[in-house]
Amino acid sequence: MRKQRKMGHITLVGPSMGIIEARLKSMLSEETEDDQPPAAPRVGIIMGSDSDLPVMKDAATILREFNVPAEVRIVSAHRTPELMFSYASSARERGIQVIIAGAGGAAHLPGMVAALTPLPVIGVPVRASTLDGLDSLLSIVQMPRGVPVATVAINNATNAGLLAVRLLGISDINLQARMAQYQEDRRDEVLVKDDKLGKHGWEDYLNS
Amino acid sequence: MRKQRKMGHITLVGPSMGIIEARLKSMLSEETEDDQPPAAPRVGIIMGSDSDLPVMKDAATILREFNVPAEVRIVSAHRTPELMFSYASSARERGIQVIIAGAGGAAHLPGMVAALTPLPVIGVPVRASTLDGLDSLLSIVQMPRGVPVATVAINNATNAGLLAVRLLGISDINLQARMAQYQEDRRDEVLVKDDKLGKHGWEDYLNS
Amino acid sequence: MRKQRKMGHITLVGPSMGIIEARLKSMLSEETEDDQPPAAPRVGIIMGSDSDLPVMKDAATILREFNVPAEVRIVSAHRTPELMFSYASSARERGIQVIIAGAGGAAHLPGMVAALTPLPVIGVPVRASTLDGLDSLLSIVQMPRGVPVATVAINNATNAGLLAVRLLGISDINLQARMAQYQEDRRDEVLVKDDKLGKHGWEDYLNS
Amino acid sequence: MRKQRKMGHITLVGPSMGIIEARLKSMLSEETEDDQPPAAPRVGIIMGSDSDLPVMKDAATILREFNVPAEVRIVSAHRTPELMFSYASSARERGIQVIIAGAGGAAHLPGMVAALTPLPVIGVPVRASTLDGLDSLLSIVQMPRGVPVATVAINNATNAGLLAVRLLGISDINLQARMAQYQEDRRDEVLVKDDKLGKHGWEDYLNS
Amino acid sequence: MRKQRKMGHITLVGPSMGIIEARLKSMLSEETEDDQPPAAPRVGIIMGSDSDLPVMKDAATILREFNVPAEVRIVSAHRTPELMFSYASSARERGIQVIIAGAGGAAHLPGMVAALTPLPVIGVPVRASTLDGLDSLLSIVQMPRGVPVATVAINNATNAGLLAVRLLGISDINLQARMAQYQEDRRDEVLVKDDKLGKHGWEDYLNS
Amino acid sequence: MRKQRKMGHITLVGPSMGIIEARLKSMLSEETEDDQPPAAPRVGIIMGSDSDLPVMKDAATILREFNVPAEVRIVSAHRTPELMFSYASSARERGIQVIIAGAGGAAHLPGMVAALTPLPVIGVPVRASTLDGLDSLLSIVQMPRGVPVATVAINNATNAGLLAVRLLGISDINLQARMAQYQEDRRDEVLVKDDKLGKHGWEDYLNS
Amino acid sequence: MRKQRKMGHITLVGPSMGIIEARLKSMLSEETEDDQPPAAPRVGIIMGSDSDLPVMKDAATILREFNVPAEVRIVSAHRTPELMFSYASSARERGIQVIIAGAGGAAHLPGMVAALTPLPVIGVPVRASTLDGLDSLLSIVQMPRGVPVATVAINNATNAGLLAVRLLGISDINLQARMAQYQEDRRDEVLVKDDKLGKHGWEDYLNS
Amino acid sequence: MRKQRKMGHITLVGPSMGIIEARLKSMLSEETEDDQPPAAPRVGIIMGSDSDLPVMKDAATILREFNVPAEVRIVSAHRTPELMFSYASSARERGIQVIIAGAGGAAHLPGMVAALTPLPVIGVPVRASTLDGLDSLLSIVQMPRGVPVATVAINNATNAGLLAVRLLGISDINLQARMAQYQEDRRDEVLVKDDKLGKHGWEDYLNS
Repeated sequence: MRKQRKMGHITLVGPSMGIIEARLKSMLSEETEDDQPPAAPRVGIIMGSDSDLPVMKDAATILREFNVPAEVRIVSAHRTPELMFSYASSARERGIQVIIAGAGGAAHLPGMVAALTPLPVIGVPVRASTLDGLDSLLSIVQMPRGVPVATVAINNATNAGLLAVRLLGISDINLQARMAQYQEDRRDEVLVKDDKLGKHGWEDYLNS
Repeated sequence: MRKQRKMGHITLVGPSMGIIEARLKSMLSEETEDDQPPAAPRVGIIMGSDSDLPVMKDAATILREFNVPAEVRIVSAHRTPELMFSYASSARERGIQVIIAGAGGAAHLPGMVAALTPLPVIGVPVRASTLDGLDSLLSIVQMPRGVPVATVAINNATNAGLLAVRLLGISDINLQARMAQYQEDRRDEVLVKDDKLGKHGWEDYLNS
Repeated sequence: MRKQRKMGHITLVGPSMGIIEARLKSMLSEETEDDQPPAAPRVGIIMGSDSDLPVMKDAATILREFNVPAEVRIVSAHRTPELMFSYASSARERGIQVIIAGAGGAAHLPGMVAALTPLPVIGVPVRASTLDGLDSLLSIVQMPRGVPVATVAINNATNAGLLAVRLLGISDINLQARMAQYQEDRRDEVLVKDDKLGKHGWEDYLNS
Repeated sequence: MRKQRKMGHITLVGPSMGIIEARLKSMLSEETEDDQPPAAPRVGIIMGSDSDLPVMKDAATILREFNVPAEVRIVSAHRTPELMFSYASSARERGIQVIIAGAGGAAHLPGMVAALTPLPVIGVPVRASTLDGLDSLLSIVQMPRGVPVATVAINNATNAGLLAVRLLGISDINLQARMAQYQEDRRDEVLVKDDKLGKHGWEDYLNS
Repeated sequence: MRKQRKMGHITLVGPSMGIIEARLKSMLSEETEDDQPPAAPRVGIIMGSDSDLPVMKDAATILREFNVPAEVRIVSAHRTPELMFSYASSARERGIQVIIAGAGGAAHLPGMVAALTPLPVIGVPVRASTLDGLDSLLSIVQMPRGVPVATVAINNATNAGLLAVRLLGISDINLQARMAQYQEDRRDEVLVKDDKLGKHGWEDYLNS
Repeated sequence: MRKQRKMGHITLVGPSMGIIEARLKSMLSEETEDDQPPAAPRVGIIMGSDSDLPVMKDAATILREFNVPAEVRIVSAHRTPELMFSYASSARERGIQVIIAGAGGAAHLPGMVAALTPLPVIGVPVRASTLDGLDSLLSIVQMPRGVPVATVAINNATNAGLLAVRLLGISDINLQARMAQYQEDRRDEVLVKDDKLGKHGWEDYLNS
Repeated sequence: MRKQRKMGHITLVGPSMGIIEARLKSMLSEETEDDQPPAAPRVGIIMGSDSDLPVMKDAATILREFNVPAEVRIVSAHRTPELMFSYASSARERGIQVIIAGAGGAAHLPGMVAALTPLPVIGVPVRASTLDGLDSLLSIVQMPRGVPVATVAINNATNAGLLAVRLLGISDINLQARMAQYQEDRRDEVLVKDDKLGKHGWEDYLNS
Repeated sequence: MRKQRKMGHITLVGPSMGIIEARLKSMLSEETEDDQPPAAPRVGIIMGSDSDLPVMKDAATILREFNVPAEVRIVSAHRTPELMFSYASSARERGIQVIIAGAGGAAHLPGMVAALTPLPVIGVPVRASTLDGLDSLLSIVQMPRGVPVATVAINNATNAGLLAVRLLGISDINLQARMAQYQEDRRDEVLVKDDKLGKHGWEDYLNS
C-alpha cells in the first residue's frame, strides 16, 4: 500500500510563492474553516471553470432564497483532478449533504464526484460553444450502472438548486413546507398573469 | 370516493388578498362568463408561459382572420397543474371544440390536456433556449398509443390555427370553403411573386 | 388554360390489357361506388406503399372499432403523383372528411395531400430502414406556414385513428362520448393491472 | 370553489362490477393499508405501463437489497391522469419520501408528478420502440425552471434505485454507510476481474 | 379517363383582375416565350418561396458564369401544387435539361418534381428557422427507391449550379473542359493563398 | 515539376509475385481493355470495400436493366489512394461519363473522386455498423463550395443507378424515354396493388 | 499537505481475505513485475468494464502483430477511481508510453486519464446499449481546452492500436516502416479483391 | 507502370505567369528550404481553407509556446488534391513527425492525409456554417479500420497542438516534462481563481 501513499503526494510548484500559498490554502480550505464563519455549508456547488459561473450562480441564488448554506467552488475534473478527488472524498465528513456539479462539453465532473462520494450529486449540463449542450447532457446523464448522477436540464442551475432543497426536505419538514409554498407562489404568478391576459387581451398584454 | 373529493380541494394561500382573488377569479373564469360577452370561444389557445405568447399569438391571429371565436390562456402543466386539470376536464362542457396547446422544452401541456379531454388537441412545440426545439417536438409528438396530439412544426402556431380551422370545417361547410379560399390566396401571392421575378429578374427582385 | 387540360392527360401504357384495366378501374374507383356498398367512407387512409400496411392497418382497426366507415388505399406521392393529385383534390366532394396519410423516409404524401385539400390531414411517420423514423417525422411535421399536417408519433397509426375519431367527434356528440368511454376503458385496464401488481407483487407479475 | 369539487368527481363506469371494484380499491389503496403490512413504503416506484416493468424492476431490486421499503405501482399520466394526480398529491402525507417514475416516448409522468409534490422525483427514461430513448430522455430531463426531475440514464433503473438510497442517506447515516460499502463492493468486483485478467491474459479471459 | 380531365381544371379566383391575369400569365408562361428572348433555358432553378432566393441565387450566378441559360422561378409544392405539377410535367418538352430545386423545412419540392419528370433533379436543402437544415436535408435526400434526387449540401446552391454544369458536360465537351478549368482556377486560388501564407506567416496573414 | 513525377512512383512490394502481378494488372486495367470486350463502360461503379457490394450491386442491376454498360470496381480512398487518384483522374479519357461511388462511415471516396474529375459523381452513403448511416450521409453530402457530389439516400444504390440513367438521358432521348417508361411501370405496380387492396380488403391483403 | 496524504489512504474492506489480497495485489501490480516477465509494456490498454473486452481486444491484437508489448487492464473511472488515479499517475514512470482507454456511455475514463498524465491518451468510444455510441463519442472527444484525447471511431479499437503504433513510430524508424508496410498490405488486399471482382463479375463474387 | 507516371503529370495553367510561378514554388516548396531557415518543422499544420485559420492558429500558438517548430499550410483535399497527395506522401522524408489537419463540413483532409502517410495525423473538426460541427466531427472521427485519425473536439485546435506535444514527448523527456508543467500551470490558474472566488464570493467575482 505504500504506492497509494505516493498517489496522494502532490508536488507544489509555481511561478511565485503567492501562487503556491494560494494553492495550498485552496486545497486545505476544508480545514481552515475561518473562511466560512456564518454557517457550515450543507450544499457544495462546484463547477469546472469560472466561465460556468453565470449559469451556476442560479443554484446559489435559489439556495440563499431557501436559507440553505452553500459554498461555491471551482473544481475542474481535468485541470485539478487532485482537488476534485480531495473535494469529493472529503465532502461527507465536512458536513456537505448534497453536491451540485456543473460542467460543459465532455463533462466529467458530476460523474467523477459521484464516483468518489456516497452523497447525492446533482449534475448541471452547461452548454458549451458547440452542439448546443447535447454533449454536456449525454456526458452527465448516461452514467453506467452503479454510479447515479441526478441530472437536470441544460443550463438549468435553478432546478439544481430546487432539487437540492427537495433532497434536504426529505428530513427537514420545514424546508419541505417551504418548497410546497414555493410551488404555490409560482402558481400564483401564473394565475396573476393569466388573469391579466384575460382582462387585457393578448395584444395589450404583448405591448405592455 | 371521499378521497377524490379531497383531491379537488385546493388551499388558496397568497401574499395578499388581491392575489388570492385573482387566483380565485382565474380558476372560476369558466363560470363567470361575463368576461367574454362577444361570442363563446370555440377554440382554446393555451400555453405554458407568457414567454410563449410571441409565438402562440399567431394562432389567435389566424382564428380571428377566420372569425372563429377563441380564448387565450396561460395554463402551465408544471406550475398550475390543478388549473390545467380543471381547464382540460371542463373544456368540452364549456363549448370548446378544439384546444391548441403550446409549450417548450419537456413540453407536457399538450399531451396532458389530451389525456383529460376527448376533444382534439393541437400541439405547438415552442423552441426553448437550447436544442433548437427538438426536445419540445419529441415531448409533444411521441405520445404513446391511446392519446393522440395533433402536432405541427416547431414554433408554427400559424399552422396550429389553420389546422383548427380545418377541424371545425369538417362540419362547417362555410368555414371549409373559406379555407379553400385561403389556400387559393396563398397561391395567388406566390404567382404574383413568381410573375414579378420573371419580369424583373432575380437581381432586381433581390434589390427591390 | 388549354395547357392545364393537357396536364390532366395520362397515357395509359402497360404490359397487358389486364393491367391497363386495373389501372383505369383504380383511378376511377371514386366514381364506381359499387365496390363500397356498406357506407360511404368518412375517413381515407392512404399510404405510400403496401409495405406501410402492417403499420397503417392499426388506424383502420380503430376506425372499425368506432364504426367510422373508412377506405384504405395505396397512393404514392412519388410513384403515382397523378393519383395522389386526383385523390386529394376530389376527396372533399367524395364525402371524405378526414385523411390519414402514412409514409416513410422523405415522406411527402401527407404534406402534399394537405396542400391539395382543405380537409384536415393526419400524418403518420412510418419508420423506414434507416434513421429510426427521424427522417419520416421531420419530413411530415416540419411543414411551412400555410399548410398544416396533424402529425402523430412514429409508427403510431393507432393514434392517427383515434385522432380522426376526435376530429369527427367535434360535430358528433355520440362519437365524442364513445371517445370519452374509450379513454375510461384504457384507464380501467391500467387500474386492473395496477391492482393485480399490488396483489401479487412485481416478481409474480413478471412471471405470470 | 364549488367547481373544484366537481373536478374531483370521477364517474366509475366499467364492463363489470369486478372491474369497478378493482378500480375503486386501487384508487383508495392509499387508505386501506392492510395490503402492505410489512413496512410503510418510503419510496414509490411508479411507471406508465406494465411494459416498463422489466426495466423498472431493477429499482425495486436495489431498494430491497438496501432494505428500503418500496411500493411498485402502475400510474399512467395519459391513461390514468386522476390516479396520477391523486398519487402524487397524497404521496407526502402517506409517508413516501422519494418517488421514482419511469416512462417512455413523450414521457410526462416524472415531470407531472414533480409538479404535484414537493418530494424529490427521480425520472427513468425508458427506451420506447423508436429513437433509441432519446425522446424519453429529453421529455424527462428538459424540465423548465421551477420543477426539477432528477434524471438518470436511459433504461437505468438500477441507478434510480441507487440515487434514492443516496437521497435517503442524507439523514440516515447507516444507509449512507451502506452506500459507501456498496461502492467498495463494486470496486472489489472490478479488482477481482482485473486480477483475473492479469493472471490469465485476455484471450483466456474471453474464452472462460 | 374523363375524371382526369377534371383534375386539370383549375378555377381562377382572385381579389382583382390584375392578380388573376398575373396568375394566368404565370401558369402559361411556358408558352408565351416572348419573356425569354435571349436563349431557351437549359436549367430550371425553382424554389418554394422568395425567401429562399438569397440562397438559391448562387446557382444562377454559377450558371451565368458558365454561360448556361437558366430560368429562375418560384414554384411552391405546398402553395402552388398545380403550378409545380404543370412545371415539372412540361419541363422536358420545354427544353429544360436539368432542374435545380431548393426548399426548406419539410422540403417536398425537389422530390415531387423528380416524381413528375424523367429529367435529373438537383435538390438544395435550404436551412429554415429551426433544426439547422437537418429537416430540409433529410426531406430531400431520403427519397424512396424509384425516384432519385441529386442532393447537395445544406444552403450550397453554388454546388447545385456546378453539378448542373457537370451534368450538361456529359454531352458537351466544351462545358466539361470549362469545368476542368474551373477546378484548376480554384486550385490556383488556394496555391496563391498558401504561397502568401508561407511568405508572410499566419499572424500577418490574419491581420492583412 | 520533377517532384511530381516522383509522386506518381509506386513501389510494388508484395508477399508473392502473384499478388504483385495482380496489383499491376489491376492498376493497369484501364489499358488492357481485353477484360471488357462487350462495350466500353459509360458508368463506373466504385466502392470502398467489397463489404459494400451487397448494397452497391443494386446500381449495377439498374444499369443492366437500362442496357447502360458499367464497370464495378473496388477503389478505397483510404487503402488504395493511388488507385483512387489514378481511377478518378483517368476516368474521363477512358470514356466514363458518370461515376457512382459508395462508402460508409467517414466516407471520403465520393468527394475525393469528385475533386479529381469534372465528371458528375453520385454518392451513395452506405450504412456502417454504428450511427445508422448518418455519418456516411454527412461525410458525402456536406461538400464545401466548389466540388459537388450528387448524394442519394442511405443505402439506396438503386436510386444512384436511376440517377445515372437520368444524367445520361440528358443527351440520349431514347434513354430518357425509357426512364419515363420506368416511372410509368412503377406507377402501374402501385395501381395494381391498390386495386387488389380495394378488392380484397386490407386483412386479406396482409394475409395473402 | 497532510490532508493530501489522507486522500491517498484507502481502507481495504472485503467479504473475504481472498478478495482483499486480490485487490492489494491488483493495486500493487505495477510493482510486482514478475507477472509480466516478457517485456515491459509500452502501451497500456485499459477499459472501464470487462464487457468492453470483446471490442478492446482488437487493439491488443494489432499491438501483438507489431510486436509492441502491451498490458491489458480493467480500470473503471466510476467504480475504481483510486486505481484509475494511481494507474494514470504512475504510468509514465512505469515506462508506459501510450495509453489506450475505452469506455461506453458517459465515458470518463479516457479524459480523466489524460488529465492525470502527460502521456498521449487514445480514446475508444464503446457503443453502449442505447444511442448507438453517440454518447460515448461525445463524452470522449469533446474535451475542453487543455486536455486532449486522441479519439478514434466508435468501437474501432483496431484503429486505436494502429494509432499507438504510429505514435511510437515517431521515434522508431523500424516501427514506422512496418506501419508503411501494413498500409501497403491493406492496399494489396484491396487490389486482389478488385482483380477478382473484375475477373469474375460482381454476381459470381457475391456468390463465392 | 507508365500509366502511373501520367498520374503524376500536372498541367500548369494560369491566368498569368505570376500565378504559375506561385503555384510551382508552392508545390516545390518542400525542396526550396530557404523559406524556413530557422528550424526544420517537426509538425505540419494544414487546413482546407484560409477561413479555417482563425481556428487553426491556436495549434500554432501552442507549438510556439513549447518551442516545437511547425509549418502552417493551406492544403485543400477538394481543391488541391495533388498538393495534398504530394504533401502527405513526402511529409515523412521531409522530417515532419506529426501532422495536424483541420477541415469543416464533409472534412476529408485529415483522413486522406492519414491514408497517405504512416505518420500520426491529428484531426480538428472545424465548425462550418450549418450543423454545428457535427458533420465535420463525424467525417473525421468515423474512419474505417486501417487508417486512424486522432480526433480532438470541434474547433479545439489548442488541444490538437497539445496532443502533438504529447506525441513528440514520447521520445523527448524534456518536452514531456514541460507538458507536465503545463498541466500544473493550468491547475494553478484554477486554484487561484477558486481562491479568489472563495475570498470574494460569487457575486463580487462576477462583477469584477
